[in-house]
Amino acid sequence: MIRVQVVGATGYGGLGIIELFLRHPEIEIGDLLAKNDVGRPLSDFFPHLRGFCDRVVEDASEDRIGKDCDLVVFATPDRVGMQYAARALERGAAVLDYSGDFRFGSPERYSEYARRHPSVAGRPHEAPGLLGKAVYGLPELFRERIKGARLVGNPGCFAVAMILSLAPALTEGLVDPASIIVDGKTGISGAGKKPGALYHFPDRDGNLTPYRVGTHQHVVETVQALSSVAGTPVKLTFVPHLAPVSRGILTTAYAVLRREVDAREVDELYRTFYANEPFVRIQPLGSMPSLKTVVGSNLCDLAVAIDQENGRLIVVGAIDNLLKGQAGTAMQNINLMFGFPETAGLERTPVYP
Amino acid sequence: MIRVQVVGATGYGGLGIIELFLRHPEIEIGDLLAKNDVGRPLSDFFPHLRGFCDRVVEDASEDRIGKDCDLVVFATPDRVGMQYAARALERGAAVLDYSGDFRFGSPERYSEYARRHPSVAGRPHEAPGLLGKAVYGLPELFRERIKGARLVGNPGCFAVAMILSLAPALTEGLVDPASIIVDGKTGISGAGKKPGALYHFPDRDGNLTPYRVGTHQHVVETVQALSSVAGTPVKLTFVPHLAPVSRGILTTAYAVLRREVDAREVDELYRTFYANEPFVRIQPLGSMPSLKTVVGSNLCDLAVAIDQENGRLIVVGAIDNLLKGQAGTAMQNINLMFGFPETAGLERTPVYP
Amino acid sequence: MIRVQVVGATGYGGLGIIELFLRHPEIEIGDLLAKNDVGRPLSDFFPHLRGFCDRVVEDASEDRIGKDCDLVVFATPDRVGMQYAARALERGAAVLDYSGDFRFGSPERYSEYARRHPSVAGRPHEAPGLLGKAVYGLPELFRERIKGARLVGNPGCFAVAMILSLAPALTEGLVDPASIIVDGKTGISGAGKKPGALYHFPDRDGNLTPYRVGTHQHVVETVQALSSVAGTPVKLTFVPHLAPVSRGILTTAYAVLRREVDAREVDELYRTFYANEPFVRIQPLGSMPSLKTVVGSNLCDLAVAIDQENGRLIVVGAIDNLLKGQAGTAMQNINLMFGFPETAGLERTPVYP
Amino acid sequence: MIRVQVVGATGYGGLGIIELFLRHPEIEIGDLLAKNDVGRPLSDFFPHLRGFCDRVVEDASEDRIGKDCDLVVFATPDRVGMQYAARALERGAAVLDYSGDFRFGSPERYSEYARRHPSVAGRPHEAPGLLGKAVYGLPELFRERIKGARLVGNPGCFAVAMILSLAPALTEGLVDPASIIVDGKTGISGAGKKPGALYHFPDRDGNLTPYRVGTHQHVVETVQALSSVAGTPVKLTFVPHLAPVSRGILTTAYAVLRREVDAREVDELYRTFYANEPFVRIQPLGSMPSLKTVVGSNLCDLAVAIDQENGRLIVVGAIDNLLKGQAGTAMQNINLMFGFPETAGLERTPVYP
Repeated sequence: MIRVQVVGATGYGGLGIIELFLRHPEIEIGDLLAKNDVGRPLSDFFPHLRGFCDRVVEDASEDRIGKDCDLVVFATPDRVGMQYAARALERGAAVLDYSGDFRFGSPERYSEYARRHPSVAGRPHEAPGLLGKAVYGLPELFRERIKGARLVGNPGCFAVAMILSLAPALTEGLVDPASIIVDGKTGISGAGKKPGALYHFPDRDGNLTPYRVGTHQHVVETVQALSSVAGTPVKLTFVPHLAPVSRGILTTAYAVLRREVDAREVDELYRTFYANEPFVRIQPLGSMPSLKTVVGSNLCDLAVAIDQENGRLIVVGAIDNLLKGQAGTAMQNINLMFGFPETAGLERTPVYP
Repeated sequence: MIRVQVVGATGYGGLGIIELFLRHPEIEIGDLLAKNDVGRPLSDFFPHLRGFCDRVVEDASEDRIGKDCDLVVFATPDRVGMQYAARALERGAAVLDYSGDFRFGSPERYSEYARRHPSVAGRPHEAPGLLGKAVYGLPELFRERIKGARLVGNPGCFAVAMILSLAPALTEGLVDPASIIVDGKTGISGAGKKPGALYHFPDRDGNLTPYRVGTHQHVVETVQALSSVAGTPVKLTFVPHLAPVSRGILTTAYAVLRREVDAREVDELYRTFYANEPFVRIQPLGSMPSLKTVVGSNLCDLAVAIDQENGRLIVVGAIDNLLKGQAGTAMQNINLMFGFPETAGLERTPVYP
Repeated sequence: MIRVQVVGATGYGGLGIIELFLRHPEIEIGDLLAKNDVGRPLSDFFPHLRGFCDRVVEDASEDRIGKDCDLVVFATPDRVGMQYAARALERGAAVLDYSGDFRFGSPERYSEYARRHPSVAGRPHEAPGLLGKAVYGLPELFRERIKGARLVGNPGCFAVAMILSLAPALTEGLVDPASIIVDGKTGISGAGKKPGALYHFPDRDGNLTPYRVGTHQHVVETVQALSSVAGTPVKLTFVPHLAPVSRGILTTAYAVLRREVDAREVDELYRTFYANEPFVRIQPLGSMPSLKTVVGSNLCDLAVAIDQENGRLIVVGAIDNLLKGQAGTAMQNINLMFGFPETAGLERTPVYP
Repeated sequence: MIRVQVVGATGYGGLGIIELFLRHPEIEIGDLLAKNDVGRPLSDFFPHLRGFCDRVVEDASEDRIGKDCDLVVFATPDRVGMQYAARALERGAAVLDYSGDFRFGSPERYSEYARRHPSVAGRPHEAPGLLGKAVYGLPELFRERIKGARLVGNPGCFAVAMILSLAPALTEGLVDPASIIVDGKTGISGAGKKPGALYHFPDRDGNLTPYRVGTHQHVVETVQALSSVAGTPVKLTFVPHLAPVSRGILTTAYAVLRREVDAREVDELYRTFYANEPFVRIQPLGSMPSLKTVVGSNLCDLAVAIDQENGRLIVVGAIDNLLKGQAGTAMQNINLMFGFPETAGLERTPVYP
C-alpha cells in the first residue's frame, strides 16, 4: 500500500489518475493539490465523482509537495514538475511527471522540445541535473528501466500512439527511417479543461481543424524513442488535427518500405513484437481500429496495411488520449515503479457504444 | 458462483450485461445465444471486447435455452422471453427478461402495454400464467420482492428515470397524481443496434426529434409502479425525444404541488427516501444532473426544484440508458435474486469527459 | 437602399444579420462596430466570410453609433442598446435591439425581467422614456405595429418558439392559461461566442443539462405576449436544457385542454391561424418537427398532438435559434420597418443533412 | 431557361442539386425520378423542403429518362448512368452523371477504377463508346472542355479536394510525383442516405475509423487528373477516414519537395494558380482551413505549409462533400455546359457556427 499525492488534481490529467487510484488495491489517495481550485471537494469540480472522491483540494504549496507520501504525480503543465521534483525526491517521494519536463535524456534534447512547444517558448530546463536520472515512461519499450525508477517522465499522448505504431517496423529495419509521416486526429480533451475559442462547442461541433502543422512538440520525444529502437536517426513529419470527439487519438502512419513484404508478414511481425503486452492489441488483418474500440480503456489498438503499388507501410493506431495517452500509462508506470502487477487498476473494457 | 446464459448476446442489451459479468466475482459467463449472428466470437460483433470475451455465439434454439445454467438473461425484444421462460424455469434456471413481457401484474395491464407498443401491436400475452409469478425489477422500490425471485421483468429505460424521479413526491402525497408530465430525452443507443433511417448519423447529428408523442409504452409500467407507491391512480403525459448522444437518458418531470413547500424541504424528502440506495444520488440543491455525471455508471442522479410562482415541482433525473436503464439494473436484480452484494460488478465511476 | 450599422458585429448575433444583409437587395452594410475585436477585417474573426465581408471592424464609440446610417442594429448584450438608442434616434437612425432592453412595455415589466436575468441582476432600465415607443418585434403577432416603427426590441430566441407554439391555442381559449409548461432544448450557440466551462466541447459533447430551471428570463416576454393575445393573464413554467448541437431550438409545450377536441381540429386551428405566414409551417398531422427541418432557415415548424387520456394539448416547435430566433426575425422586422418585402434576404432552405 | 430532369432525386445527391436549382434563375426543375421512393412528394422524403419542393417523385423508367428536358442529372450510384446516357443524348438531352461512369478517358482506365470500387466489382463498362465523348467535370482544371459539353462525368468528392490541393504543386514540378500521400477525413453523408451498421449513430458518434485503406476508388481519377496537369505519371497513397460529422471533407496532403522553397513562395504559387477561381480560397499563410469555413458553400479552402526539416510540402484542403464535392461542382458544370454565369445558384456563404 502506497500513498500518492496528486499535484494538479483538478485538471483532466489529475482526474484520470485519481479515478484509476480509486479502484487500485495498493494505492491510497493522499493530498489532492492544485493552484487555483482549492478549498472545495474534488467532486465540486467533477460532479460525476460525488460520493466517490469528496476529498478537499488543497493549495499546491512548496512545503506541501512531496510530503507524507510515497509518490507525487505531477499532473501539471510543463515547467511545474521541474521546479518541485528535486525537493520531492529529497523528501523520499518518487516522482511521475505528466509534462515534457522529464521526457528527455539531455538539456539539448529538451531545448529542441522547448523550442517547439508554444507554452515553453524555448526556455531552458531548470533542473538539468535531474534529466540523467529520469526515465521515459513508455512501458512497452522501456519497461526494465521503469521498474524501480524514482523519476519518470510520462509520455505525450500523440507520442504513445506514434511510437507504438512504428517501433516494430523500425526495430526490424522494415522501413526507411527518413520517410515517416504521421497524420494524427485527437479528441478535444487533449487540450485540457480550460475553455478556449478553439474548444468552444459551437466552433468545434461538426468541425475538423489541423494545428501546429509540422511543428508539434511530441515529434521530439517520438523521434528520440524511435531512433533509440531503430538504432539510427529517425525523421518524422507530423500533422495533428482536432476532431469533434471528447476522447481518443487515432494516428495514421505512412512509411516507405525497404523491401517487398506482404501484409501478412508485417502483421506477424507486429504480433510477435507485442506478444506479451497486456495493453497492445493487433487487429485482425483487414480490420481497422476505431476510437471506440479503445476509449474508456488503457488499450492501444494497432493495424497494419500495405500499399503494394507505392511500396508503403500504413499503420493505424488508436488510444484513449486520457488513459493510454496519459493516466493509464502513468498507472502502468507507477505499477512498475512500485512492483505492483502492471495491470492493477487498469482492468477496464472500452466503453461502447 | 453461478453460470449465466445470455439470449440476445449480440445486441446492445446483451453486450451491457456481458461486460458487467466480466468483472463480477460470482458469475461465470455461460452460453451466448442469438438468432442471427451465430458461429463467430462475440468480439467479431463487438471488436472492443477482443481479448475480453471471444466466446463463440451460438444459435438460440429452444432446446438450448435454459440448459446448463442457473440463470437465463433474455436480452431480447418483446415476445421472445414469454415463449421460452416457462421451459427455462422448468429446467431449473431463474429468468430475467429485458422486455415488457414480465413487467405487468396481469394480462389486462399487459394488454394496455401491448396496445401502445408498436412492435407488439396489441397481441395478447402468450404465457399469462407466469405473470403472477413475475416481479417488476426496480430494486429501489421492490427490493424485497426481487430477493430470491425466479422470474424478473427488468424495467424499461425511461421508466427507471421516471419512477425514481417521482416516487418520493407521490409516496408523500406532495403532488397531484393527475398532474404529471415528463419530458424525456434519450440517446440513440436506446433504439438498439439495428440501423434505421431515424438513427442514421447524418440525420441524427445536430438534431432533436420528439417521437411517440404521448403514446410511449413505458408510460404503462411507470403508472403501474407509481400508482402502487402513491396508493392512488397516477396519470402521466410523457413525450420522449431523440437527442444526438449515444448513451444516456435525461427526464424532466413536472407536477402540481398540493401544498406550499420550499425546495429545501423537498430536497430533504428525496434524500431521506433514497438514503440507503447505493445508486441514487441527490444533487446539491441548485445543481442539476447532466448525462455526463452518470453515463458509464449505474447511477441515477436526481435534483429537485420548485417553481413557486406556479406551484409546481420539477424533478430532473439522469441515468445511463444502457446501465441503470437496462443492464445495470439487471445486474442489481441478479445480485438480489442470488444473494450477492447488490453492488457487485457495478462499482464503476461515470466516464467524464 | 438603406445603410445599416451593426453594433456588436463580431458576436454570433452580429454575424447572423451581416450574412443576411450580404444577400439583401436593398441593404448596404455600413459600419461594423464592436467593443473589443477592432481594427481587423470581420473575416479575421469569422474566416468562413473571407471574400464575402472583409470590412474592418471599428470601435463602437458613442460618437460613431447611429451616424451615417438609416438603421442601427444593436447585436449586443443587455444594457448596451439602452445607453445609445436615444442618441441614435436623434441622429435620424431607426433602431433594432437584440437584447431585452426594448422588449417590455413598461419599466415595471422590465424590472421583472431584470430580476430574472443573471447578467442584468435587477438593475433598473436606463432609458425608461423609450419603452413606450418601442415595439416588440415578433412579426407574426405584431406585424402592423412593426411596420414603420423606429425602435424595435427583437424577441428572445426561446420566446419566439414558445409564443408561436401557444398563440393559436390561447387566442382561441382552447387551453387553461394557468396550466402551461414548456420544456426547451437549445443549441450551444445560444450562449454566444464567448467560451466558458459550460460550453467547453469535452463537457458538452454527449451531454444534456437543464439550466435556469423555472427562472429563465424569456418567460417574462413570453407571458407578456401570450397574455396579450389571450386577453387574460397567462402563466408559464419553463425549463430550458443545453443540447449538444450548435444551432437550433426545440420546444415542447404542454397545456390542459378546456374542452374535448381531436387533433384534427387543433391542427386546422393552427393552419388557419398561420395561413398567411411565410415562415411558419404546420407539419402534417402525425409528423413532428426536428431541428434539421429548420436549421439554416428562418422557418418555425410547428406540430400539434393531443393526449386524450389526460386532456392535454402538446405543441412542438422548432426554429434555428440564430435565424428565426434572432437574426432572421430581425431581418423580418427590418423589412417591415422599411417597407421591403418581408421575405427579402430570407429565402433560404434549411441545411440538410 | 432550361428544364432539368433529376434521376435519383431522393438521395442526398439528388437533394443537393435540387436545392441549388430552386434558387437558380435559369433552371426549371423537371421530372424528379427515382427507383424506389416514388408516388409521393419530394418533401415527404425530405421534410425540410416542405413548401419549397413538393413535386411528386416518379418512376425512373427507361422511356421517361431523357424526355422533355434539356439536361438529365444522374444523381445515381455507379452503373446506372451508363445504361441510360446514350438514349438520353439521342433524345436531345445533355447528361451529367455523378458516378464513376463517365470520369475516365478509356475503358482501361475505367477497369482500373472498377477493380477498386467495391460496388462495381470489376465489371466492364457497358457504354465504352461514350467514354471518348465524356468530359471530366472539374471546372478549375478542365473548364474549357466542359463549356458546351454534352456528357460530363462529375468528379468524386475526395478527388475534388485532392486534385485542387495538389494541382499547383505538380503543375509547377515542385514536388516528386511519386511521393504523394493524402490522409482524408469525410463526413458520414458521403456514404449516402441508406442506413448501415457503419453509419449508425451510436457507432459513429465520438468515433473515427479508417476505411478502404490504400484502396479507395477515387485514387484512380485523382491520378488521371494530376498526371495530366503534371505531364508525368503521378502516384498516390490515400487513406480515407470516417469522421463524426454530417458534412465536409478535409484532406491533408504530403509530398516530397524537389527543391528548397519557403512557405511564402508556395503560397504565392497557389494564389496565382487559382487567382481567377470563384470557389477556391487560399487561407492566409499560417491559417488553416476547417470544415466549418466551407460547409454549406461551394468553396474549396486550401492552405500550404512547409516542413523544412524533412523537405516536405503539406497542403490542407476543405470542401463540403455534398456541394463542392458533388452538387456544387455539378452546378458549376451545368452552368458551363449551358453558358450561364459559372456562379449562378451558388452564391452561398458557409454556415457558421
